[in-house]
Amino acid sequence: MKEIIAVIRMNRTNAMKRALVEAGVVGFTATRVLGRGKLVDDPAVIAERRERLLALAGDEVVEPAETEQLVDGFLDGSRLFPRRLFTIMAHDGDVPRIVDAIMKANRTTNKVGDGKIFVLPVLDAVRVRTGEAGDAAL
Amino acid sequence: MKEIIAVIRMNRTNAMKRALVEAGVVGFTATRVLGRGKLVDDPAVIAERRERLLALAGDEVVEPAETEQLVDGFLDGSRLFPRRLFTIMAHDGDVPRIVDAIMKANRTTNKVGDGKIFVLPVLDAVRVRTGEAGDAAL
Amino acid sequence: MKEIIAVIRMNRTNAMKRALVEAGVVGFTATRVLGRGKLVDDPAVIAERRERLLALAGDEVVEPAETEQLVDGFLDGSRLFPRRLFTIMAHDGDVPRIVDAIMKANRTTNKVGDGKIFVLPVLDAVRVRTGEAGDAAL
Repeated sequence: MKEIIAVIRMNRTNAMKRALVEAGVVGFTATRVLGRGKLVDDPAVIAERRERLLALAGDEVVEPAETEQLVDGFLDGSRLFPRRLFTIMAHDGDVPRIVDAIMKANRTTNKVGDGKIFVLPVLDAVRVRTGEAGDAAL
Repeated sequence: MKEIIAVIRMNRTNAMKRALVEAGVVGFTATRVLGRGKLVDDPAVIAERRERLLALAGDEVVEPAETEQLVDGFLDGSRLFPRRLFTIMAHDGDVPRIVDAIMKANRTTNKVGDGKIFVLPVLDAVRVRTGEAGDAAL
Repeated sequence: MKEIIAVIRMNRTNAMKRALVEAGVVGFTATRVLGRGKLVDDPAVIAERRERLLALAGDEVVEPAETEQLVDGFLDGSRLFPRRLFTIMAHDGDVPRIVDAIMKANRTTNKVGDGKIFVLPVLDAVRVRTGEAGDAAL
């Protein structure tokens, strides 16, 4: 049994939900978080990312007036970006198929920021209503 | 040391808090998430669930006018339900007692949706104030 | 590969972000949760904590009028305190340095409530854009 954590773009939430339901996942939760990846210090890479993020941010930020401030703050490490975090509980054998479905649902045109997927071990599950435990509880 | 994750009904939040405090848990967090379990495709089961969810949703949805739309969207996989997610850090020996307390606090009258409990391994804990590590930090 | 979960004071969020970026972390998310630690039943300890929490709560609670009610509810187990939860994905070798940075950024003057850090095992990571897996995906 595994926990799959995926941190993706806000505007891929619906595509992600569809992909998970189509993949037959046994249960998942979604929540809004703020996040960031590794800080970059190469000025050329920063300039390139700034253009990309300004174009992207319109889809992901509630108040567009804040877009430029947010992007610059993100690039210097002082601000975080809104991201959608999904948590999916899965049988071991289903993990590769679910990871594949998540990648397909979240890949854009090779832009930084498509997201990351993490797989964590789960020792046990229990269904509250019946008390069933282990794989039968998923 | 273990992390116990419980995803339960929104309207069981207070019963859950009381149960955890009475069980003497050493620390927990609660947050609102959106979630769903496995999609069902048997029309008879869907019809039965639809009635249950319409009756339940009144307690869990802020805007009752949206109840029917939410329930139908939930049943066809396009919508998620608000759920409460608790994260509890526990000593290994306390896990069965805490899982039992969670089941007692969240069982309703055999309706689908009472929730699930997951147990994950934790390698270490550190108390920020003192730097204590391991079981002593819980 | 490890997941570091840190539950800290709301008003240390900016110090925490700076510390993580300076520590070169490869990615993290932040979210608001409600939480509590172990319930205390020694009246002297409760009285001492009440004074501390009333002084602290002003920084952490949106509506100051609710401060006293919240503190008393927290002490009797019926209320939770707003807390910031960070999730950091890290290479194994970076964990001690990151835990150290978190402790430095969140220690106040020996008051209860500075927070806790937990370390969980992560089995794998995948970068959505490229499909890279394992340590290379962090």
